Amino acid sequence: MSPDSATKDDLIRVAHLLADAARTETLRLFRVPGLMADDKAGDGQLFDPVTEADRAAEAAMRRVLETERPDDGILGEEFGTKPGSSGLTWVLDPIDGTRGYISGTPTWGVLISVADQTGPLFGIIDQPYIQERFEGGFGRATMTGPQGTQPLAARRKVGFAQATLLTTFPEVGTNLERRAFEKIASGVKLTRYGLDCYAYALLAAGQVDLVIEAGLQPYDIHAPICVIEAAGGIVSNWQGGAAHHGGRVIAAANPDIHAVALSILQETVDG
Amino acid sequence: MSPDSATKDDLIRVAHLLADAARTETLRLFRVPGLMADDKAGDGQLFDPVTEADRAAEAAMRRVLETERPDDGILGEEFGTKPGSSGLTWVLDPIDGTRGYISGTPTWGVLISVADQTGPLFGIIDQPYIQERFEGGFGRATMTGPQGTQPLAARRKVGFAQATLLTTFPEVGTNLERRAFEKIASGVKLTRYGLDCYAYALLAAGQVDLVIEAGLQPYDIHAPICVIEAAGGIVSNWQGGAAHHGGRVIAAANPDIHAVALSILQETVDG
Repeated sequence: MSPDSATKDDLIRVAHLLADAARTETLRLFRVPGLMADDKAGDGQLFDPVTEADRAAEAAMRRVLETERPDDGILGEEFGTKPGSSGLTWVLDPIDGTRGYISGTPTWGVLISVADQTGPLFGIIDQPYIQERFEGGFGRATMTGPQGTQPLAARRKVGFAQATLLTTFPEVGTNLERRAFEKIASGVKLTRYGLDCYAYALLAAGQVDLVIEAGLQPYDIHAPICVIEAAGGIVSNWQGGAAHHGGRVIAAANPDIHAVALSILQETVDG
Repeated sequence: MSPDSATKDDLIRVAHLLADAARTETLRLFRVPGLMADDKAGDGQLFDPVTEADRAAEAAMRRVLETERPDDGILGEEFGTKPGSSGLTWVLDPIDGTRGYISGTPTWGVLISVADQTGPLFGIIDQPYIQERFEGGFGRATMTGPQGTQPLAARRKVGFAQATLLTTFPEVGTNLERRAFEKIASGVKLTRYGLDCYAYALLAAGQVDLVIEAGLQPYDIHAPICVIEAAGGIVSNWQGGAAHHGGRVIAAANPDIHAVALSILQETVDG
C-alpha cells in the first residue's frame, strides 16, 4: 500500500532534514589533515575505510529519525537495523565512496531513501561539498546545485554504441564480473572510472548512460534506484530483476541501452 | 631573469582575469543536453573530444591577454602558439579533462600559467563548477572554494606504502607505461582513477600523495607544476628531470615518495 499524500510530503521533508544533518557532519571532517581510515574488513587486505565522519553522519541522521519518524525502521551502513512498526524503513549510507572521501575528491555522496515492503519509494543522493542534491520519487525528479534547480531526465535517444559508461571498476568485482564489464566497455563510446554514487546522479541528470557495478549492498543502491527511475532511467540486477537487494547492478538511461548491456552481461557471466 | 615585483603582481592579476573569463565560457555549456564532442585525431579510434566550450574558453582568454598583456607570447591547446616579445609566455589549457567535462563530472579544470625561458612561474588550476581555484607561484600557495580560502601544503610525512595514488590510467599509456604504473599501484595503500588535472590539485591540497601520468602535453602540466611546487611537492619526468616539456610525469607529495616511485618507474621502463 502506497503512503497517502500527507505521509509522502512528510517523508520528503524528513529526507531533506536527514541530508542537511549529514552534510554538517561529513563536511566537518572532509579534507581535514590526518583523517585516517579503519580497515573494517579486518583482514589487512581489503581497503574498506570507515571514517569518523561516516559514523557521525549516520548517528546524526538517526537522531533526526528518532524525533521525526520514531515508528519507522532504519537500515544503516554503520549501525545496522532498527525495526519499525510503520511498514516504512529508512535506508541510509552516510558516505558512499569513502575511498573518494579520504582522497578529497568531490564525488562521494550521502544516500538517503525510504522503502516499504515493495522496495524503495523516495531517495536522495547528496554531495555536500559541491552542495548538490539529486532527489527522486513521489512525483519528484530534480537536482539542486551551484547553478540552481533543474529537472532530472535520463537520455532517451542515445544508443549503446554512443553511450558513456561509468563504474567503480577496475577496483571492484571478481575476474568474471570484470570480464563482463570489459566486454561492455569495448562496445560503448567512452568509459570513466571511480565515481561511486555520483555516477548514478549523472545518469539521472542526462550526462551519462550506463552504470555497472557488482558487490553492492542494499544501502548502496536504494536511493539511486529512486533518483534514476524518477528521471526515466532503468535499474536492475544483471538478470534483469529487481536491484534493491544489491549485488550486481546495472543502471541505464533507456530501454535500448539496458537491453544490449544486459544481454552482454548475461552471456559473459552465465556462459 | 625573474620578473620584478610589480610584474609578478600584474601576472597574478591577469591569471585570475583569465580564469574568470574561462569560467563563464566553460559553465555556459557544461551539462547542456546534446553537447557533442569532435574526434580531433580524426582516426575514428582515439576519443579526444574538443568541445565548443574548449574553443570558446581559450578564445576568451586570448582576448583578455590581447588587452592586458599584448607583448607576452601564448601557447594554447586549441589555437597554438602566438610569439611574444616580453620573454614571458602564457600556457593555456581551456578544459583539461574534456572526457570528464562531457560526462558531467566536476573534476575537469582550466589550466593557466605563465612561463619564462626557465619554465613555468605561476599557475592556476580552476574548477568552475565547484568554484574552486588552486594557485601557486610567486610566493603564493592557496585554494579558494565553497569552504573559503586555505593554504595549500602537500603531505610531508606520508610514506610510499601509505600513499594514495591518482591517475587517468588505465585509459592512457602504452603497455609498458601501464606495467610501470601497476607496479607502483601494487605498493601503495589506495589507487583512484580518472580525475585529470584535479588530481594535481588534490596533491597540492594535501589529500593525495602521488600522481602518475604519461603522454602529457606541456599545457597539461605547466600549471600543476606551479601549484604543486608552491605547496612543497615535487614534479618531474620519469627520469627525474624537468617535467614542463610534458610526456611521462610523476608528481609526489614529498622526496621519500618521489624517490621510491621514481626507482620503480625507471626499473620497469628501462629494464
